[in-house]
Amino acid sequence: MNCSDSSVRVAIVGASGYSGEELVRLLLRHPNAQLTAVTSRQNSGLTVAHIFPKFASQPAAQLLHFTDPNIEALAGAAEVIFLALPHGVAASFAAPLLEAGCRVIDLSADFRLKSAANYREFYGQEHPAPHLLSEAVYGLPEIHRAQISNARLIASPGCYPTSILLPLLPLIKAGIIQTSGIIADSMSGVSGAGRKADLDYLFCECNESVRAYGIPKHRHLSEIEEQLSAAAGKKVIIQFTPHLVPVNRGILTTLYLTPTVPFSTPVEECALNDSLSRIYSEAYGSEPFVRLLQGKALPDTKNVIGTNTLEIAWRLDSRTGRLLVLSAEDNLLKGAAGQAVQSFNILHGFPEISGLI
Amino acid sequence: MNCSDSSVRVAIVGASGYSGEELVRLLLRHPNAQLTAVTSRQNSGLTVAHIFPKFASQPAAQLLHFTDPNIEALAGAAEVIFLALPHGVAASFAAPLLEAGCRVIDLSADFRLKSAANYREFYGQEHPAPHLLSEAVYGLPEIHRAQISNARLIASPGCYPTSILLPLLPLIKAGIIQTSGIIADSMSGVSGAGRKADLDYLFCECNESVRAYGIPKHRHLSEIEEQLSAAAGKKVIIQFTPHLVPVNRGILTTLYLTPTVPFSTPVEECALNDSLSRIYSEAYGSEPFVRLLQGKALPDTKNVIGTNTLEIAWRLDSRTGRLLVLSAEDNLLKGAAGQAVQSFNILHGFPEISGLI
Amino acid sequence: MNCSDSSVRVAIVGASGYSGEELVRLLLRHPNAQLTAVTSRQNSGLTVAHIFPKFASQPAAQLLHFTDPNIEALAGAAEVIFLALPHGVAASFAAPLLEAGCRVIDLSADFRLKSAANYREFYGQEHPAPHLLSEAVYGLPEIHRAQISNARLIASPGCYPTSILLPLLPLIKAGIIQTSGIIADSMSGVSGAGRKADLDYLFCECNESVRAYGIPKHRHLSEIEEQLSAAAGKKVIIQFTPHLVPVNRGILTTLYLTPTVPFSTPVEECALNDSLSRIYSEAYGSEPFVRLLQGKALPDTKNVIGTNTLEIAWRLDSRTGRLLVLSAEDNLLKGAAGQAVQSFNILHGFPEISGLI
Amino acid sequence: MNCSDSSVRVAIVGASGYSGEELVRLLLRHPNAQLTAVTSRQNSGLTVAHIFPKFASQPAAQLLHFTDPNIEALAGAAEVIFLALPHGVAASFAAPLLEAGCRVIDLSADFRLKSAANYREFYGQEHPAPHLLSEAVYGLPEIHRAQISNARLIASPGCYPTSILLPLLPLIKAGIIQTSGIIADSMSGVSGAGRKADLDYLFCECNESVRAYGIPKHRHLSEIEEQLSAAAGKKVIIQFTPHLVPVNRGILTTLYLTPTVPFSTPVEECALNDSLSRIYSEAYGSEPFVRLLQGKALPDTKNVIGTNTLEIAWRLDSRTGRLLVLSAEDNLLKGAAGQAVQSFNILHGFPEISGLI
Repeated sequence: MNCSDSSVRVAIVGASGYSGEELVRLLLRHPNAQLTAVTSRQNSGLTVAHIFPKFASQPAAQLLHFTDPNIEALAGAAEVIFLALPHGVAASFAAPLLEAGCRVIDLSADFRLKSAANYREFYGQEHPAPHLLSEAVYGLPEIHRAQISNARLIASPGCYPTSILLPLLPLIKAGIIQTSGIIADSMSGVSGAGRKADLDYLFCECNESVRAYGIPKHRHLSEIEEQLSAAAGKKVIIQFTPHLVPVNRGILTTLYLTPTVPFSTPVEECALNDSLSRIYSEAYGSEPFVRLLQGKALPDTKNVIGTNTLEIAWRLDSRTGRLLVLSAEDNLLKGAAGQAVQSFNILHGFPEISGLI
Repeated sequence: MNCSDSSVRVAIVGASGYSGEELVRLLLRHPNAQLTAVTSRQNSGLTVAHIFPKFASQPAAQLLHFTDPNIEALAGAAEVIFLALPHGVAASFAAPLLEAGCRVIDLSADFRLKSAANYREFYGQEHPAPHLLSEAVYGLPEIHRAQISNARLIASPGCYPTSILLPLLPLIKAGIIQTSGIIADSMSGVSGAGRKADLDYLFCECNESVRAYGIPKHRHLSEIEEQLSAAAGKKVIIQFTPHLVPVNRGILTTLYLTPTVPFSTPVEECALNDSLSRIYSEAYGSEPFVRLLQGKALPDTKNVIGTNTLEIAWRLDSRTGRLLVLSAEDNLLKGAAGQAVQSFNILHGFPEISGLI
Repeated sequence: MNCSDSSVRVAIVGASGYSGEELVRLLLRHPNAQLTAVTSRQNSGLTVAHIFPKFASQPAAQLLHFTDPNIEALAGAAEVIFLALPHGVAASFAAPLLEAGCRVIDLSADFRLKSAANYREFYGQEHPAPHLLSEAVYGLPEIHRAQISNARLIASPGCYPTSILLPLLPLIKAGIIQTSGIIADSMSGVSGAGRKADLDYLFCECNESVRAYGIPKHRHLSEIEEQLSAAAGKKVIIQFTPHLVPVNRGILTTLYLTPTVPFSTPVEECALNDSLSRIYSEAYGSEPFVRLLQGKALPDTKNVIGTNTLEIAWRLDSRTGRLLVLSAEDNLLKGAAGQAVQSFNILHGFPEISGLI
Repeated sequence: MNCSDSSVRVAIVGASGYSGEELVRLLLRHPNAQLTAVTSRQNSGLTVAHIFPKFASQPAAQLLHFTDPNIEALAGAAEVIFLALPHGVAASFAAPLLEAGCRVIDLSADFRLKSAANYREFYGQEHPAPHLLSEAVYGLPEIHRAQISNARLIASPGCYPTSILLPLLPLIKAGIIQTSGIIADSMSGVSGAGRKADLDYLFCECNESVRAYGIPKHRHLSEIEEQLSAAAGKKVIIQFTPHLVPVNRGILTTLYLTPTVPFSTPVEECALNDSLSRIYSEAYGSEPFVRLLQGKALPDTKNVIGTNTLEIAWRLDSRTGRLLVLSAEDNLLKGAAGQAVQSFNILHGFPEISGLI
């Protein structure tokens, strides 16, 4: 869809959660988007400025009212619909909106998998619209840019998967790491749990607390492993451990990998480092939203919060023969709303950074 | 009740909130108390160790099971019952427990007021057991120690009132400050809101947030003003502004007061400082749980968290003619569970610090 | 200076602190500014991208190197110089830069006072450039916009003063509050203490801590009282208590005021509320960076963090006869760097929101 | 040293850091210890109550003054000396104190290694007292209790090593996991960095930040690998990644392990789980300070903060063939001061929990 309209009408369904709120923020000030509808059953009738006072300085926030979600109204109001809904619910909107001629960018997990069986295994229910799975494009711009540009239905990746796939995929494609034995150890801020009234996410339950959860088979494994397997040309199974840490935003991921070439001597280590440097530069050297750290710097969530940037650094450990790769991102931006807008820009041929820096 | 039993059987009704949890912690290790029953509808059947893993090292925590609250069972199990229940609910337990011969230490607001009309005005409902109001003793040990020692029903003070009354009462009794124009500006940690599933108290809604709430007529004003008026011998009305700040525990209160004597010269200021020093020393110099700060030190919640101590410091401001008094306490201890146990110790003639340091 | 150059060359002296960092961020992306020089002795020779990785996505951040501060080089590089230096040091740069023909926007306290005696009293040293005090304009745009537009030397207000003056000045000018007895009780995030290696501001000393400091005579009183006195036409002395709370950014101020008209009846209270509403609407209804809250909403720092907006709400308390006014701002933006850029926009006739939303 | 004196005189050298502060707290209230001396060059002459207001309620804190460290005075004042000093410095105190007849419990890294070469490799300097290395006992009570009971010099383990070794050693001794390929991924609160004025540990640099550091060859690897190798009877090399997270206290460690027996069928998995359960029960079932979590519970630092307890849970992942073991501890207690006091109790035949619960 390589046009370059000066402005595209967009709508957000389910705009009261944390990702939805970030979508509202980004789209309100996007130079090529006009936010014409936002839906939320509980906020219906209220203005965006009322629900999100921090956006009240934007004139549009004063005028735009939340409405109950309605397919016809949405299709009339916007060309592109962002879905920020729970999994299972998103699919029930995507199908009729596509039929009504809209393009859909879905932030839920509903269309991230190619396999309905995989969905059933990890989400514990039948997929509500399996006929759309093959068409949906996994919206990781740095990897699937060409497909995104022509998509009707974009499945925007999960927050953890983004932080794991972007550092991993170039290494797997280059064949420089073994595809077995991969470990991804991640820490996420509490906004990753969504804005829901749950004792587990009260301030006093999260502050001064560090804990793992959802192990050993977190749902995000399904999309991570599908993408890795596709890149590797064979089934890839990884270990993934998410932890909850007391920050609002940010994911830090530490990957434990084994290179396919040995590096027991300094010369071999130096050569391997050069290869890694070349692989990452080729993959991301021109990417506006991936930052390859140099020298002693290591990823730190405070350096990416509020941005659509993912940081990457790596270290070889000659003592253990392992390669460590670390990444940091804002789970609500590069891990959710920012990446969705990045796909929107690609879809419409806008500059990829439009509305994002 | 000046006996000194080596051990008294106690029970806690409503032991699943933050104050209840602290009561459990304190009473499990109290040398003169034997915790025989803890009730909680939602945790009924589970052990204390299961619900509060951090107490699991105490053998009793492995053995003690939460039960549904039952008056007869409670009266059979314990001589003293601590109520950590919502206001309105507490009164419905207190009355029958007293009839059954128990002594009751109530951490709710139900028996803190002498006036049922006052209760109605501030709590928006008729008092459920007005006949008990005159008997109940306001459980501020440093002020009402003698009455506490003989009480059947102790109304343990609120967290904000404790942080305001302890610094204020000696000054009012001494007549050294005007009783009009008093301002109390307080900041509380989030545990003050209780353990309840409410969006307002999610980690991401409190972290990196500072806000006032409940102004200008917070419910705690009712007990603060009743106590101040009793001490002053006339009606006292104060200004009180609570703020929520992102810490788990702790209340810091800043009081703005006007001395009854002028201090425009250094000599007068010095004399007034001496008077204040003497008043506070006489009031609290021998108190185990009030710390009068010397020199440049100012109260800091981090120095009282986890303790039953309230810190006090003051400053005269010759520019404005005002006296500033500051206090810090742990809202769950000196502001709730710790103070209740302090009253328990007084009630039974145990050393007042028993189980508290 | 009512031109409208498409782009003005600007420099920042002392760009390694928190306010300096925010200036860098704002000016790097300002559509009408070209950041040509940033100085910092400790970072000299390094790029902005190296020191502030979070700005590395901006191409200019890769190219711009920190330099040692040098008057000639600065005067050659830029028309407008922002000084983000400690008080006392700033003045030593301002004087020669003005002589060299630059305009200066100073974020320190050096030129905020009209009186050198006042400076001596509050800052404990002789003013280093008293001849410039009368010329300097206090850079509070909503109050001194006309003067700012023609200034050579702008003294950007302190963070606390902004949060206190903006809510207070319209009330004082309207004569609706008494000028005696004013109390300002403020809470600030830790960035207000600056980026300096001091045990008091370590994570473990601030986290889970709430404390007052600098009472009763904080330095910011000098500029607050000068501005209030000028507006009132008589000497105004206020009470000001700053507190440190564990957030990165944000100031919440609670003002305790006494209206000049009584409001003991509902009719009077309603009338007074209407007057307050009209006064604030006239003062700030069209201001892009002041948000007057409606209904039940109260200021919350989380709704202004990352923005140049100051929120205001008020409540009348008929029980005490007082007016409470509350404000919230980001201490590094409306309280420092954002406000300085707002003045820059005014100085050059750019849209006032340019580079700020 | 199986006596049971009712009270032993103890001293702390370097009592102004975070671990030193916890030692002061524990020893002030220890029923079998009398704290007779605390040293700190910077606090010399001041009382413990002055420096640590939170301990001021303890009468001894009012009487005990910090002094400059002096070997003779220390040897005269106490039978057991706790050293809470930087590595390198501790050894210079340990040697003369031992000669003077004291027993020494050292919280630094100086005597944790058996090999001076190992010390040189990881600490970058010659060991200052290599003749003491063979005598020193690694003070991990659950592992080396018998040796501790007779030691003259106890090297209390590091915080990370404790969180890694306690979960790992029983598995290695049982031969149930492979000794190659072990990964330890840890998160620590900021107190682990000590109380030192360093920009990296300012509130604003740590709050809302998550980052790895010290990879891939953190100093604590030296003692971890020495202990693991001794248990395995062969050289063990592991991968260790520490992360800094914004909490005051607490370490959470996630271990990635490979069982030596396969568990591809449910029957095998069940059998392996039974074996693990038995191994851990035998190792720690009677330990007062190790909590083996049951059911769905996972370690959470908030459940161990303020206690000397280490929590352990494990999960088998049949998808990857790995065993995950997680642990949580308070880095200043079980990871430092608490464990040192536990060793002190063993050394003197006091109940091991004395002063610790």
